[in-house]
Amino acid sequence: MPDGLFVARNQWYVAAFRTELTTTPLERWILDQPVVFYRCSNGTPVALEGRCPHRGLPLSMGKLVGDDLQCRYHGVRFGPDGRCAHVPTQTMAPAACDLKAYPLLERGPWVWIWPGESSAAAEDMLPPLYEIGLEDPAFELCVEAYRQVSGRYMLLHDNLLDLSHLEYLHASGIGAEGAARVDERRTHGENWVCSERHQTETPCPPFFHAILNYSGAVDRRFGMTCHVPCLHAGFDDFTRARSDPDRPGESLGRIRVYHAITPGRRVETHYFFAAARDFARSNAALTQAMYAATEQTLSEDIAATEGIERLLRDLPSPPREVLLRADATCVQGRRLFEALMRGEAAGGD
Amino acid sequence: MPDGLFVARNQWYVAAFRTELTTTPLERWILDQPVVFYRCSNGTPVALEGRCPHRGLPLSMGKLVGDDLQCRYHGVRFGPDGRCAHVPTQTMAPAACDLKAYPLLERGPWVWIWPGESSAAAEDMLPPLYEIGLEDPAFELCVEAYRQVSGRYMLLHDNLLDLSHLEYLHASGIGAEGAARVDERRTHGENWVCSERHQTETPCPPFFHAILNYSGAVDRRFGMTCHVPCLHAGFDDFTRARSDPDRPGESLGRIRVYHAITPGRRVETHYFFAAARDFARSNAALTQAMYAATEQTLSEDIAATEGIERLLRDLPSPPREVLLRADATCVQGRRLFEALMRGEAAGGD
Amino acid sequence: MPDGLFVARNQWYVAAFRTELTTTPLERWILDQPVVFYRCSNGTPVALEGRCPHRGLPLSMGKLVGDDLQCRYHGVRFGPDGRCAHVPTQTMAPAACDLKAYPLLERGPWVWIWPGESSAAAEDMLPPLYEIGLEDPAFELCVEAYRQVSGRYMLLHDNLLDLSHLEYLHASGIGAEGAARVDERRTHGENWVCSERHQTETPCPPFFHAILNYSGAVDRRFGMTCHVPCLHAGFDDFTRARSDPDRPGESLGRIRVYHAITPGRRVETHYFFAAARDFARSNAALTQAMYAATEQTLSEDIAATEGIERLLRDLPSPPREVLLRADATCVQGRRLFEALMRGEAAGGD
Repeated sequence: MPDGLFVARNQWYVAAFRTELTTTPLERWILDQPVVFYRCSNGTPVALEGRCPHRGLPLSMGKLVGDDLQCRYHGVRFGPDGRCAHVPTQTMAPAACDLKAYPLLERGPWVWIWPGESSAAAEDMLPPLYEIGLEDPAFELCVEAYRQVSGRYMLLHDNLLDLSHLEYLHASGIGAEGAARVDERRTHGENWVCSERHQTETPCPPFFHAILNYSGAVDRRFGMTCHVPCLHAGFDDFTRARSDPDRPGESLGRIRVYHAITPGRRVETHYFFAAARDFARSNAALTQAMYAATEQTLSEDIAATEGIERLLRDLPSPPREVLLRADATCVQGRRLFEALMRGEAAGGD
Repeated sequence: MPDGLFVARNQWYVAAFRTELTTTPLERWILDQPVVFYRCSNGTPVALEGRCPHRGLPLSMGKLVGDDLQCRYHGVRFGPDGRCAHVPTQTMAPAACDLKAYPLLERGPWVWIWPGESSAAAEDMLPPLYEIGLEDPAFELCVEAYRQVSGRYMLLHDNLLDLSHLEYLHASGIGAEGAARVDERRTHGENWVCSERHQTETPCPPFFHAILNYSGAVDRRFGMTCHVPCLHAGFDDFTRARSDPDRPGESLGRIRVYHAITPGRRVETHYFFAAARDFARSNAALTQAMYAATEQTLSEDIAATEGIERLLRDLPSPPREVLLRADATCVQGRRLFEALMRGEAAGGD
Repeated sequence: MPDGLFVARNQWYVAAFRTELTTTPLERWILDQPVVFYRCSNGTPVALEGRCPHRGLPLSMGKLVGDDLQCRYHGVRFGPDGRCAHVPTQTMAPAACDLKAYPLLERGPWVWIWPGESSAAAEDMLPPLYEIGLEDPAFELCVEAYRQVSGRYMLLHDNLLDLSHLEYLHASGIGAEGAARVDERRTHGENWVCSERHQTETPCPPFFHAILNYSGAVDRRFGMTCHVPCLHAGFDDFTRARSDPDRPGESLGRIRVYHAITPGRRVETHYFFAAARDFARSNAALTQAMYAATEQTLSEDIAATEGIERLLRDLPSPPREVLLRADATCVQGRRLFEALMRGEAAGGD
C-alpha cells in the first residue's frame, strides 16, 4: 500500500467461522492486534483485547469462570464487556485493567468483528448478505474452510480481483480452458467492484460436468464482486445452452463462493472460504467433490501468495510491477481500498 | 528495563550445574556473550571467551589437548587462563590472541561466573549460601533441573517476585487454594527482598499431603527471598497445626527451592532450578515425586514467560502494564535490579 | 567486506552443475537476485530474472510452453532471450514486461553465469580451464557435489585460502599430519593467488594410501590456486619418494579438486565441488571412496562456516579478527576480491 497505509479499521471483517468459537478461549490476531475470542454460556460470542494488562500474559491461556475470562497467571477476571471484574489479591477491580471489547455480529457462517472505534460500528456496513446468497434460503452452504496465509492481505485481494488466473494457476482443477480470454464486464459502486464473464454454447468444464450431471453445451455466467474491505462474493450460474434441443436456457445449477480476507498481521492473513449451491442439496458425494476442489484451489492460491510474499521479503530492493489490461478490475479495487484508508487517515470514518 | 539497561555485569551468576562441565567443551551464552566451559584434568572448571579471535570459530567445536583448548579450525591453543599457548604455523603465540578468562566459583550444586571486570570479583558477593540451606547439612539437595527459556530474564524474576501466581498458573499442581489471598509480609535489605506468607490451621495441600505422609491440619510458612541479581531462595516449612492433639507445632518437614536466573541473550534466559529437603532423605519415591512436580511447575512458568515474550515481540507498539497491590514485592525487586545497573552505568561497581 | 562492499558483478560465477538444468524451471539466487534456470528443447541453457514483473510470482513455479517460460499465475510467457512473448488477455506483449536474460556458458561440469552488464560478458574472463585440468583429457571428473551453505561467501574463500586448516578441521579425514607445518610457497597474478606445499619422503596419508594402492614413502606437491572471484583449483600430486628402491620419482597419481563459490544471498552461498584424477579411472570403488571423503570434508567445512556465521549474526557488536603469519595468502586473496569490487564501484569493470 502507498504511504505505509496498512488497513482500514472502521469496517467489518470476518473473525472466525461460527463453529470455531466455543467456551475455550481462542487467540487470533486481527489487524495486527491479539484478540481473544470465546462464547458465553448462552452462546453469545465475545472478543476482547488478547493480553492481560497486568503482566502481559496471552488471555487465550486463561479459562472461563462463569462468563468471565480469568487470566491464567494471577487470576484477574474480565467480563464479556471487557470490564475488569475481579482481582484476587485486592477488593477493588481497577478500571485501568479494563480490556477493549470488540463489537461482533454473527451473520452467515461467520462471526464478524469491528476492529475500529466501537461507537462507529453499524450493521448496515456489512456486505449485502441476502443479495449475495448468504441469507437466501435458495442456497445451501456446503463448504467451509479456514486457512492462515503467510503473506500480506492485499495479495489475496489482487488474486481474487483478476479471475484470468483461473485458467493458469488452477489449470488442472476449476480453471476453464479459455475463461481468461472471455470478455470481462465490469461494474462498480462506492464500495464494491464486480467483474463478470459470460460464455455461451461452451462445453461444460470437467469439474462442473461431474457435479451438474450434464454433458451438453452450456451457457455460463460467472464472476466475482469485491465488497471492500473484506469479502469477495463469487457466482457461477450454468444454464443449458440455447442450442439445447429439450430445455434451452434452463438452469442447471447455481454456485456461490465466498472469500473473506482478514488481515491478521502485516504478512499474515486469515482466509475464510465458503461455498453454497442451489441444486442437488442432499448429495453428499457432490459436497465431498466440492470440498476436494476447494482444497486444491486454496492450496494453489496460497502457494502463489506465499511465493510472491517470499520474493517481496527477500529482494534487496522493492521490485517493479507492470500492469496489464486485464488488471483494470484490480486497479479499481485497489483504489477503493486506498480510498477507505485515506478517508480514515484524514479523520473521517 | 528503562533506558535500555540490560543487566548488571559485576555480579555472580550461575553458569551451569557442576555436573554439566566435563572435558568436552560446552558453549553457553552469558550476558549476551558466547562463553566456552570445560574442566581441566584435575577437575578445575574453566570459562573462556567462546570465539577464536583468529577466524572466529566457536571454540566449543574444539577439543582439549592436555588442559589447553585447541581450536578446531587451525589448531590455535589456549590455556585455562585464556593465554594463547600455541600457534602451529608460527613459533610465537601472539598476545593479541589471548582470550578473556572468566572468574568461576563452585558453590552449592552450581558453577558461578563473574561476567564483569575480573579484578572486581569477590566471593563475599555471592548470596548467603549457608543461610538459605545450600551449604547447610540439614538439607539434602534432591532435584536439579536446567531449562533454556525463550524470553527476557526479567520476566522470570517478575514471576518469582509475585507468588500469588501459584494459585492460578500452578492450580493443578503445587498451587495451594487460597494461598494468593493470605497476607504477605515483606522485608528487604540492600540487595535482597523477601516475601513471606503464613497459613495456620489449614488443610495440607494435595501435593504436600502425599510427600509429608500427613493428612491433618498444618501451619505453613512459605515464601521467597530474591537475592539480586541471580538467585531466588524459597522456603516452605510445614508444622502440625496448634490444634493437633498429639504434637502441636512439631515440624513435618522443610523444603528449600532455588531458582537461579541467568541472562543468556536479550530474549533467552538460563533457568537453573534446585530443591532440597530435611526429611525423608532416603525416600526415592518422594524424590521422584518432587521431580515430577518440578517438571510440571517449570513447564507452566516457562509457558507463561514465553507467551508474554511472544506478545512483546509481536505487538507493533510497546504495551501497557498495570500494577496491582500484589505487585509491591515485585516493584521493590525491580528497583534493586535497576539500582545495580544504574550504579554500574554511573561508573561504580 | 569493508565499506559495505558485497560482491563483484561483472564476472563469471558458477550457477549450477550442467546436470541440474532441465526443462523443469529451477530457482536459484545469484548475487542476491532470484534467477530462474531451464533448458530449451535443444539443450540450450537459459537464465532469466526469476520473478514475473506482472504480479511478482516466482517464475520457477511456471512451466515451459515450447521454449518459452509461462508464468503459472496469469499465463504471461517469456522467450529464452527474456522478451515477453505473449499475454493471454491482450494482443500486445508489452516491452515493460521483458525480463533480464543472463549470459551463460557451459564449461567443464558447470553452467557459468555473468550477473553483471551483459555487454561486458567475455569468455576470456573465465578461469584457465585447460590449465587447471577441467578441459584436459588426462583427467577424468569423478566427483560432483552441490551444497548450500548458510554463511557469507567470503568465509568459504577464507577457508580455502588457508590450507593449514586441513590438519585440524579435517584431522580424521583428508588432513595430513604435519601438513600445516610444511613451508608454503606463494605466487600470484592479477586475479589469482597460488599457495603450494611440498612434502618429501613422507608416509602416505591414510586416505591416499588406500586409493593409490601404495604404502611406501611419497613425495607430495599440493596446494590451491584461487582464481578470483569464483574458483579454487586444487592439486595434489603424489610420486614415489626419491628413496624408493624401484622407481623413484614415478607418478603415483594426480588429483584435481575444484571449489566454485557463488554468493547466493548475503548470508547464503552456493558451494560447487568437483574432483578429477588421472589414475585408476575405471575403479568404481575408488570413485566411491572419493565421494565418501568429499562428503566428510564438505560437512566439516560447512560446519565451520556456519559456526562462524552464527557468531557473526548473534554477537551484539562486530568481533575482532587477529591475523597470523599463515594468513598471508588469505590476505592477498582478500585484496584481490576487494580490488575487483572497488574497481566496479569506481565505474570500471
